[in-house]
Amino acid sequence: MQERETGASAARHVRRLWSIDPTAVQRSNLHFMNRYMQLAIESALEGVRKNHGGPFGACITQNARVIAVAHNTVLRDRDCTCHAEINAIRAASKKLRCFDLSACELYSTAEPCPMCLAAVFWSRIRKIHIGVGRQVAARYGFDDARLHAEFRLPQHRRVMAIQTGVMREACQNLFAEWKSLHRDLY
Amino acid sequence: MQERETGASAARHVRRLWSIDPTAVQRSNLHFMNRYMQLAIESALEGVRKNHGGPFGACITQNARVIAVAHNTVLRDRDCTCHAEINAIRAASKKLRCFDLSACELYSTAEPCPMCLAAVFWSRIRKIHIGVGRQVAARYGFDDARLHAEFRLPQHRRVMAIQTGVMREACQNLFAEWKSLHRDLY
Repeated sequence: MQERETGASAARHVRRLWSIDPTAVQRSNLHFMNRYMQLAIESALEGVRKNHGGPFGACITQNARVIAVAHNTVLRDRDCTCHAEINAIRAASKKLRCFDLSACELYSTAEPCPMCLAAVFWSRIRKIHIGVGRQVAARYGFDDARLHAEFRLPQHRRVMAIQTGVMREACQNLFAEWKSLHRDLY
Repeated sequence: MQERETGASAARHVRRLWSIDPTAVQRSNLHFMNRYMQLAIESALEGVRKNHGGPFGACITQNARVIAVAHNTVLRDRDCTCHAEINAIRAASKKLRCFDLSACELYSTAEPCPMCLAAVFWSRIRKIHIGVGRQVAARYGFDDARLHAEFRLPQHRRVMAIQTGVMREACQNLFAEWKSLHRDLY
């Protein structure tokens, strides 16, 4: 009898666990998402006021823990690769001492440009949360939309001047050398 | 008569200037191009032997002057953004103290991935010289071709998980704040 009661009590407990109001879960998720995005926005604002670069911020999280917050520093660092997302990925990799960020999520105030989107791919970040799309950045004169369009074109129609096949054989041999050393693919 | 002779002599001089053997010019260009690519290859080889990262090297030049030489250091720096081209762009920007590299050309042992190609676009580098195409890298297991394909897909068909519209209004306000401070577009 005692045992049956305990079983019934356990079942009630499980039911309680599974009957959490789903809208409450959504509200809670939204609360955290907004908190992370708020950190990205505050960083972007700081960058704009200090004239570090454009109005872009990013935040990287891992299991509800903030790993890195960064903003665009192209002007401060005189380096075109210093977009908010790249800065955040670099900071997160340094903190976690790992190039694989597959347990992480990224919050970005604006849609990442192709450079940052590809960096997210290489970092294996599992999800991107975006504030505004490329159209908003374009309205303020930022070139992201043009670059996104460039990537959809076949190579011969792109504006970038590219010459291929320079020392092709020697460059091919690099891969053979790499393979002969049995290096891990990462 | 004297004048006509001088004119004829000037014309001969101009003809001499314009009648340089074009194959000699090509040979000379090829000599320099190969020299720059050789530097990129040597850097890549060093990186492979020291296990800094994949078999990729890059060299940036400005008016026949070598500005930066770099290789992939993803493993050494535990940072997925440390591709050869990104490392070279960062080093060149530091050396020239400028994010605008429009007077520069890039030599890369392999076709740049979308991250590096977009970085080249932002740096305004005027020409890219490539050793081997993405197919060679793919043959050795590198994922560049898959990422290039991803960029040709419309957003809803891409593998990356993206959620848009998080705190949209606050993110939009960032641009307004930036504009109100009359910052230059770069």
